[in-house]
Amino acid sequence: MAYQKDDVPGSYGHGGDHDTYKGFLDFSANINPFGPSLAVRRGAYRGVEEMGRYPDWQCRSLREGLARRLQLPESCLVFGNGGAELIYLAALAARPKRALLTIPSFSEYRQALEAAGCELKEYVLTEETQFTLGEDYLDALTEEVDMAFLCSPDNPTGRIISRPLLKKILQVCGRRDIRLVLDECFYQFVREEAQSGAERLVERNPQLFVLRAFTKMYGMPGLRLGYGICSDRAYMERISRIRQPWSVSTPAMEAGLAALSENEASRAERVRDYLILARREMERQLDALGICYIPSEANYILFRSSYDLFERLLEYRILIRDCKNYRGLGKGYYRTAVRTREENARLIAALREIYGESRTKKER
Amino acid sequence: MAYQKDDVPGSYGHGGDHDTYKGFLDFSANINPFGPSLAVRRGAYRGVEEMGRYPDWQCRSLREGLARRLQLPESCLVFGNGGAELIYLAALAARPKRALLTIPSFSEYRQALEAAGCELKEYVLTEETQFTLGEDYLDALTEEVDMAFLCSPDNPTGRIISRPLLKKILQVCGRRDIRLVLDECFYQFVREEAQSGAERLVERNPQLFVLRAFTKMYGMPGLRLGYGICSDRAYMERISRIRQPWSVSTPAMEAGLAALSENEASRAERVRDYLILARREMERQLDALGICYIPSEANYILFRSSYDLFERLLEYRILIRDCKNYRGLGKGYYRTAVRTREENARLIAALREIYGESRTKKER
Repeated sequence: MAYQKDDVPGSYGHGGDHDTYKGFLDFSANINPFGPSLAVRRGAYRGVEEMGRYPDWQCRSLREGLARRLQLPESCLVFGNGGAELIYLAALAARPKRALLTIPSFSEYRQALEAAGCELKEYVLTEETQFTLGEDYLDALTEEVDMAFLCSPDNPTGRIISRPLLKKILQVCGRRDIRLVLDECFYQFVREEAQSGAERLVERNPQLFVLRAFTKMYGMPGLRLGYGICSDRAYMERISRIRQPWSVSTPAMEAGLAALSENEASRAERVRDYLILARREMERQLDALGICYIPSEANYILFRSSYDLFERLLEYRILIRDCKNYRGLGKGYYRTAVRTREENARLIAALREIYGESRTKKER
Repeated sequence: MAYQKDDVPGSYGHGGDHDTYKGFLDFSANINPFGPSLAVRRGAYRGVEEMGRYPDWQCRSLREGLARRLQLPESCLVFGNGGAELIYLAALAARPKRALLTIPSFSEYRQALEAAGCELKEYVLTEETQFTLGEDYLDALTEEVDMAFLCSPDNPTGRIISRPLLKKILQVCGRRDIRLVLDECFYQFVREEAQSGAERLVERNPQLFVLRAFTKMYGMPGLRLGYGICSDRAYMERISRIRQPWSVSTPAMEAGLAALSENEASRAERVRDYLILARREMERQLDALGICYIPSEANYILFRSSYDLFERLLEYRILIRDCKNYRGLGKGYYRTAVRTREENARLIAALREIYGESRTKKER
């Protein structure tokens, strides 16, 4: 059996595949377009200097720093190799018989639940309500469900769950003993008034597991660092037992620690405010092009087009996320990140050409 | 619920806990004592420069490089966040009903199999045979077993499985449809004549999954990079489906790529040869102290002592691995890494003091 360059098992259903599309302007991954700060990069370099030793399995410094920042006990935190690892851990530790997923949603929830050998029930969100989670979701949380995954702001729709609805959901979950994973990996991009403050709900709702990541705001998807917040000690013990002891690498840990400073907090706010304005501008421009989009609370926008936009934009060396492989979306749905104004202008200009060109064709 | 520095869930049962024992001379983790080469460190730094982008989920460059080096098809390789992740993936993808473990063995096998909801059968290795796997292991591979974990060189015993026995095991596994995970994370420390060449057995034995890691020889435990070799395409597909897409970070990928050069291969051989001589020297010194040890083929030695050596050596700011929490070993067993001659001399000198001091006491 000699060397062969052959098909590698598996398939990829995500954005950010910059190794296939080298040098493309990447709107397919929803990352802070300004990249990691100098301090966070320095943290990562410090981590590389320590590469010859095992990472601290308890992530002690990072844990202490994050617990202080969130004003939570250290025991309520668990760290993982990106948010993705925690999705798997949350599912495997819960060992649910039947779980409830919203459709569309991030494909890793389904994979993790299937790996845990779980039956899936679906709650379908529709475009009529702009994919917004409504009160009728409460009825879907039946006795037979023992785990539910929600995402706010949702990926790929950008919709958030209102705080009053979240509280009602938690009440039902508490009554029916349903473990709720609330994925807030994009929470730092949400305007202040609309933020869930889910970390303040954890204490009174032990069935709540809040998932967050350093990846997006601190621009470190290459390093992998996510965390979970939960006050259910027995559940956290189970997670800890099946967790690989050194899943968080030293560079990720050190970069994360650097991200906890006051400076980084105010940088994150400035980036958030910039991206909110940039998103509104993009939404207006999409409006002007007659493109139908879902109003977003995050740093990305879900929209529809009858053009094969993914392919068409490749000609402009621009990468967006084709959402056709999302269950509940399908052909014609696309997601674009909100990037810097200059970069967004390049995307909009390309869209104008694509849309304008066909208008000209129609006029002929 | 305000900030509290409280007990973190979980417990640690491994070596290398340098965050608890800061500044100690660490014989508890079995890592190349010369650390990562400059080239590998440079690779890691290059990875940090790319931290703002998602890692390549297919690990394309690394895959191509390793496939060429091993002369294997690219599709036979899967990469993970350290060997530990692959242990979990191998177990979860196999979904065994009943698995066979040798006792003592690396605790992560048990944890992974338990996470996969599997029943465990134990094959006990004893000190009488120096914990060497014998032919009677074949009888333990019964029809009811569908997965088995073996480790060669074994951790913590340092014993290897002879190539003829390995081939017999593979025959039985093939006949009885048993998935065999052969953990060779320390294979690069074994003298050339004794190496298994397991990568050459993979093609004809699709039930074999060989697990290896860059961690030990390339001195990069802080970065996390392991890989699996297997020719069973359906099984590799299942692993790929439950694998998190970006589990290998960019610094780990780039460091691994740098480790594939000719230079690194000859450095690895020099390190191996050095450590073999250093181990023999240590074994002679243990002999001289009357310490009973298991002859090792790896860069660590399992030995017995009636002293509370873990605690006693802390006084010398030396850390060894207390093996009392290994199933099948218990109190009085210790494992020490083989490090540089100068460092080994410090350990031996401390042992001499501890042993000599008590002799003096006895003589009194």
